[in-house]
Amino acid sequence: MTSNPSVAGAPVGVRPAVRAVPAYPFSPIQVPIKLDQNENPYDFPAELKARTAERMLAQPWNRYPDLHADTLAAKIARYEDWDTGSVVVTPGSNVLIKLLTELAGIEQTVLTVDPTFSVYTLEAKMLGARLVQVPLNEDFSMPVDRLKVELQRQRPGVLYITQPHAPTGHVDDVAVVRELLEAAGEWVVVLDEAYYQYSGTDCRDLVRQHPNALSLRTFSKAWGLAGLRAGYALAGADLATQLQKLVPAFNINLLTQAALEVALENPGYVQERVAEGVAERERVLAALADHPTCQAIPSRANFFLLRTPDAEVAYRHLIDWGIVTRRQDRLTSLEGCLRVGIGTPAENDTLIEAVRALK
Amino acid sequence: MTSNPSVAGAPVGVRPAVRAVPAYPFSPIQVPIKLDQNENPYDFPAELKARTAERMLAQPWNRYPDLHADTLAAKIARYEDWDTGSVVVTPGSNVLIKLLTELAGIEQTVLTVDPTFSVYTLEAKMLGARLVQVPLNEDFSMPVDRLKVELQRQRPGVLYITQPHAPTGHVDDVAVVRELLEAAGEWVVVLDEAYYQYSGTDCRDLVRQHPNALSLRTFSKAWGLAGLRAGYALAGADLATQLQKLVPAFNINLLTQAALEVALENPGYVQERVAEGVAERERVLAALADHPTCQAIPSRANFFLLRTPDAEVAYRHLIDWGIVTRRQDRLTSLEGCLRVGIGTPAENDTLIEAVRALK
Repeated sequence: MTSNPSVAGAPVGVRPAVRAVPAYPFSPIQVPIKLDQNENPYDFPAELKARTAERMLAQPWNRYPDLHADTLAAKIARYEDWDTGSVVVTPGSNVLIKLLTELAGIEQTVLTVDPTFSVYTLEAKMLGARLVQVPLNEDFSMPVDRLKVELQRQRPGVLYITQPHAPTGHVDDVAVVRELLEAAGEWVVVLDEAYYQYSGTDCRDLVRQHPNALSLRTFSKAWGLAGLRAGYALAGADLATQLQKLVPAFNINLLTQAALEVALENPGYVQERVAEGVAERERVLAALADHPTCQAIPSRANFFLLRTPDAEVAYRHLIDWGIVTRRQDRLTSLEGCLRVGIGTPAENDTLIEAVRALK
Repeated sequence: MTSNPSVAGAPVGVRPAVRAVPAYPFSPIQVPIKLDQNENPYDFPAELKARTAERMLAQPWNRYPDLHADTLAAKIARYEDWDTGSVVVTPGSNVLIKLLTELAGIEQTVLTVDPTFSVYTLEAKMLGARLVQVPLNEDFSMPVDRLKVELQRQRPGVLYITQPHAPTGHVDDVAVVRELLEAAGEWVVVLDEAYYQYSGTDCRDLVRQHPNALSLRTFSKAWGLAGLRAGYALAGADLATQLQKLVPAFNINLLTQAALEVALENPGYVQERVAEGVAERERVLAALADHPTCQAIPSRANFFLLRTPDAEVAYRHLIDWGIVTRRQDRLTSLEGCLRVGIGTPAENDTLIEAVRALK
């Protein structure tokens, strides 16, 4: 070893903000029923998988893909009725959250509610943004007045509004979201719509009316393509141009491009699955409504919160039934809560039975 | 339109550092001979493509992939004789450059030479690092003494050393790189080895000896898999742990994982192609050595600089011959230069003929 004695195993050049953050906590557990990541319980249709494979095999893999996935962006734009140049595609919408923090959070402010999606706060902390969180109202609705105070008080940056909200599944009235957008002034406002298909809501009109707003959408939930990693932003022209500068060149590989193009040419399966997902969510919530000790909290997404007397006990009980969920009981206002995805009807039957067996 | 009158089309929350940077300049040109992106001229072998497709089809696409591509990282670790936990995989090594700037550049310093790979400087500018560049020596070797002065003078951050250097193709003596590492103190030192297979050099021993150093490697060049977008860092345990925190979760999709696992199980084709690439590079350089007006600059990578009397004229002349190259004539010390990739033997024959026809 000839290492520099001043180094002592830990390069000091690493920023303290990164060192201070714990590693992302996720340990996969092998059980038959996987309700912990809000995935679509059904695979991409076999015929579409086969068509994707054909398309991939016909392309050269030694050549870089499009700089900004332009062909794919054009197909998304057509599907979304949006300008092609204002669609920004990345390998997962968590990448877009990083880029938005780079765009308007570094040395500025990230404002969001509490509880909220962990990636907003994690990126804010690591990238040196001032992180400001306002607790949700007791019914999980947006704390509009307190957010408006912070929009005035803090140095502008990024405001995250999640509709439906994660992890509560709550949806606010569109007038509430509009009120926040109108109060946002110089802030970049992110309307994260990862689960919008399950709530039947749509923020595109709000984005069209507010050049500092954008909608984040994903192929990981309703489209059933979490394994491919693709998300996108719908923004106004200027905001899209600035955000696109931060996207690493050639970031969507040709395999993903092929699969998503096939999906966008054959979107019929999505609607069918979303309809089943919504019906199943309502069936599960109804079946658990009279539980003596647990509260299944109404949700507009493809998951719901189950408030239990003891999250650790409930989590292990469900594991014993072959079901994995996500603990959320350490989050603000979510004492005792597990986040439970909606599975196939058979999986949901087992879930209902398992929760009913929980004292 | 009900947009906020204070916004006027451009959200002020966008950081000025991002707004100040021009968009990444790349316009694809459709000609038969593509020597502008330093790609491997050969596709991934057809048999391996077919095997990849089979493996992909057997997996569910609706499920998130591994949090940190652990199975793939383990295969890379075995191939590289490295600890699995100290391999960090991302969708392209340009993503790693962004993450390294986040790790140790934001509000700190990015130090590199000039000319250099544009992504180092672009990310530094956008993410608010102080960017310091030291001109290369006239023979394109590392300006060791001046870099050592800056390592002392500047607040620590990230030092980028590219071996072989891009876009010159120069390789420095390992003693030179070691001297810089020993002078680096608290700096994170990135040894970017994107083209190491073509130079026959290897910085892994240096990384083993310096816990603040890491090696960046890619599947885009020698492996012939630019279309898949995958790069990785080999680091010490602590540096890898800190860097991994900045990697978006689930960032390598299942399609890429399948392809790279197949590649790593069948790496034999790489050596063969690299051997041909090196032999072809030497053949092209020799064939152009006596050119009356152009200078083909010796290189240890899979590309070389061609210094011409007028880059614009030379670039257009080659386009007329069906060959696209990359202009580098606006970079420091590279007046008149094009960067030319090494193609197949037939493509290189055309290149030689075309350059010989250039007055």
